[in-house]
Amino acid sequence: MSSLEQLRSRLADVNALNAARAIMDWDQQTYMPKGGADARAEHQGILSRMSHETFTDSTTGALLEKAVGEAESDDDKALLRVVRRDLDLATKLPTALVEEKSKLSAVAHEKWVEARATNDFPEFAPVLERMFEIARQEAECLGYTEHIYDALLDQYEEGATAADARAMFDALKGSQVPLVKAISEKPETDDGFLYGEWDVVAQSKFTEGLVRSIGFDFNRGRQDTAPHPFCTGWSVGDIRLTTRYKPYIGSAIFGSMHEAGHGMYEQGSPAKWDRTPLVGGVSLGVHESQSRLWENIVGRSRPFWSANLPKLQAAFPALAGYDLDTFYRAINKVEPSLIRVEADELTYNLHVLVRFELECDILTGKLAVRDLPDAWNAKYAEYLGITPETDSVGCLQDVHWSMGSIGYFPTYSMGNVLSYQIWNSLQKDIPNTADLMAQGEFEPILGWLQAKVYSKGRYLTPKELVKQVTGKPMDPADYLAGLTAKYSAIYDL
Amino acid sequence: MSSLEQLRSRLADVNALNAARAIMDWDQQTYMPKGGADARAEHQGILSRMSHETFTDSTTGALLEKAVGEAESDDDKALLRVVRRDLDLATKLPTALVEEKSKLSAVAHEKWVEARATNDFPEFAPVLERMFEIARQEAECLGYTEHIYDALLDQYEEGATAADARAMFDALKGSQVPLVKAISEKPETDDGFLYGEWDVVAQSKFTEGLVRSIGFDFNRGRQDTAPHPFCTGWSVGDIRLTTRYKPYIGSAIFGSMHEAGHGMYEQGSPAKWDRTPLVGGVSLGVHESQSRLWENIVGRSRPFWSANLPKLQAAFPALAGYDLDTFYRAINKVEPSLIRVEADELTYNLHVLVRFELECDILTGKLAVRDLPDAWNAKYAEYLGITPETDSVGCLQDVHWSMGSIGYFPTYSMGNVLSYQIWNSLQKDIPNTADLMAQGEFEPILGWLQAKVYSKGRYLTPKELVKQVTGKPMDPADYLAGLTAKYSAIYDL
Repeated sequence: MSSLEQLRSRLADVNALNAARAIMDWDQQTYMPKGGADARAEHQGILSRMSHETFTDSTTGALLEKAVGEAESDDDKALLRVVRRDLDLATKLPTALVEEKSKLSAVAHEKWVEARATNDFPEFAPVLERMFEIARQEAECLGYTEHIYDALLDQYEEGATAADARAMFDALKGSQVPLVKAISEKPETDDGFLYGEWDVVAQSKFTEGLVRSIGFDFNRGRQDTAPHPFCTGWSVGDIRLTTRYKPYIGSAIFGSMHEAGHGMYEQGSPAKWDRTPLVGGVSLGVHESQSRLWENIVGRSRPFWSANLPKLQAAFPALAGYDLDTFYRAINKVEPSLIRVEADELTYNLHVLVRFELECDILTGKLAVRDLPDAWNAKYAEYLGITPETDSVGCLQDVHWSMGSIGYFPTYSMGNVLSYQIWNSLQKDIPNTADLMAQGEFEPILGWLQAKVYSKGRYLTPKELVKQVTGKPMDPADYLAGLTAKYSAIYDL
Repeated sequence: MSSLEQLRSRLADVNALNAARAIMDWDQQTYMPKGGADARAEHQGILSRMSHETFTDSTTGALLEKAVGEAESDDDKALLRVVRRDLDLATKLPTALVEEKSKLSAVAHEKWVEARATNDFPEFAPVLERMFEIARQEAECLGYTEHIYDALLDQYEEGATAADARAMFDALKGSQVPLVKAISEKPETDDGFLYGEWDVVAQSKFTEGLVRSIGFDFNRGRQDTAPHPFCTGWSVGDIRLTTRYKPYIGSAIFGSMHEAGHGMYEQGSPAKWDRTPLVGGVSLGVHESQSRLWENIVGRSRPFWSANLPKLQAAFPALAGYDLDTFYRAINKVEPSLIRVEADELTYNLHVLVRFELECDILTGKLAVRDLPDAWNAKYAEYLGITPETDSVGCLQDVHWSMGSIGYFPTYSMGNVLSYQIWNSLQKDIPNTADLMAQGEFEPILGWLQAKVYSKGRYLTPKELVKQVTGKPMDPADYLAGLTAKYSAIYDL
């Protein structure tokens, strides 16, 4: 066997272990009885260690070096590039630091749950401070040239820097803060009719029909229920969506559309790359661009609902009598609120901005962790015009920092920005998207995304992909123009 | 770390890999979209190899030898005994033979599916002949003192021999063949009202309620749907049942009761042994005794249905108007038929007997594989009074031989025999089982089985366990007396 073949075989072992972890995680969030939790944690811990050991074993690196000389096809070369990046990320951190972080995460997560429940930030502050210290050490190990944040952000979004994020947020802030302010002076939209006791089976059927209609392939995937919707998978032939059923009927609808966006991206990877590191999404930001594209640009558009509102009303007779215009305004209601995960399309980035700025300030020592609540509240007042009454609905709301996911948040906004940027490129080739959506014809749209984005897997870097697809680097202009036009029309600005 | 601790840690790794395989298998049979099949086969193959390599690596054997001197508690000693047996079974077969069998199984399974579909036994005969030759080689490697069959049967039922099986079947044959013949001369029972288009959700709810009422713990398990019902699990806290919904309403009811019997046995292992080789059922025969006990002795009894028939009729109004006696006769209808998996309680063992005798004859060279169809048909005529019109519903009906599971069949009948033997012991301590069942009070019954059988896990050998629980070795007398009494009453013999 050549070194390349040996490397492939080793990667297949790692892939099988990771597939096992993914299916165990899917099961845990969908069907597992509560009595299964302890054993599941033990099994996951062991498989996670095996996967890490198999991948980071010095053999992998040695095979990689030898395989470089053997790689002939572009596919092989792309594979080796991706493996090198993954191996770098997995090996640059000293084992002691990885273990300390793992242990601290378990403690910090527990402290965070407790602190959030009892609104006791000082209880959480010491572990959070230690977590930021670990993030600083991680950044030093991973390496960076300009800003310490670059090293952390790169883990989630290859090649993205704090400067990229700063430039993006400056543009977003300049346009979105006044837009939200203008809307808050307008009369409030009534979306009360979207809340009710909706039949769960009807919601499940309707959302399945919806995501099938846009192109999610149920021969190669399924949709189940989970408290916090997610998309996962372990083969291009087996991608799992989840959704949830809440009094707000939009929870299921937009949850399903969002996860189906992730899912169609995953289903679109070439089968020849299945079970290799070349398969799947290229970065968190690009992945999120696809979930947001299908959720917001398609799923919250008027043409989409001109086709689907009658079906929704047939499934839920209580919604009959609300016309398209009323419905469209209701699902696009803008209202500054405290909780990021419940935010509307327009205010969402402002939530992310707060977190990005605070992360940077803590990492660089400008802000002490103990002063986080005041800084948080001040930024909410400035950007969203509201102030949390407690830290539980303020700086304690997100799980990310307790797990040490520092540098992660900007990828949400990058996803929003890229969704419109990619959509505008698509519209240059397919100008009649509105007609297609109104006719329920999604093949041309999905086909374009498939050809330009999904079929690329991890073949290019995220920056190369964005450039190739849209002709320019990430640029908030399309996003801001799109949002401004949409919401100016809705709110008559 | 002591050698014992190192051994435990290695066993925990094997356990995690096997848990991953089990959950992948569960998912494959319940929820997996068909597009997931190829990747699932690859992942299973890799994890299976890893599990086998980790367990059979020479380190395991070396640690086992060293650990013997360190074992102090009875638990530790039992653990080492069980590990030694498993390691023997896993290492006595040369890798070349294991690999040849694995490859042949894949081919043979395909040939079998094809041959069964086209009723073409000669197409299957050559691979089946090779499979029996491999079984002979396996038996020689595993070792035996009296009969070549002993080595094969022992894999599934530790310590059981061909002589044990022969003695059991002789007793069964002597009593059951005339009993079935006598019944076949009586008027046929009408069970047509048990066939219909039953609502699937109602069946799911009803069977869940039924298995909950006998003691299956849904905090530590669940029930889903599968084409071929099975029970699996990967922790005492996470045991999964499956059932199926067919025109015959008994398919779901008795399928659920059967799998719940397996499931309660698994849930009953001590939590302290969770994720170790001491957990779970002691042998296939003893396991089957529990599925059959709950399915047949409880589930097909008159007292059980005196409590549950009104509930069944409330759930399925088409069944209203049939009284307890009619219902009880219908679910205990005896009718010689061609297909083992559809056989009633009484004729089931005769199907197994045919297979046992033919396996022995082929292994010892008394019967040539090419003559199997004639031999099969002759035995069906002799024992069941019917003759298959095609090999598809004759000697091609079972999957077992195509997978190389030769020596497996007798455990089904051992399960039947042991179910009554254990039940009779239980009745000595709890004489009022009929009253308890009529009252829906299963705690005393489950509690007894829990204390005497389930809590023992694999601590004793199957023969030791049977002796300890019933005071004697396996003995068909209880079973035959029970069956004769039950069916004499039903058929007025």
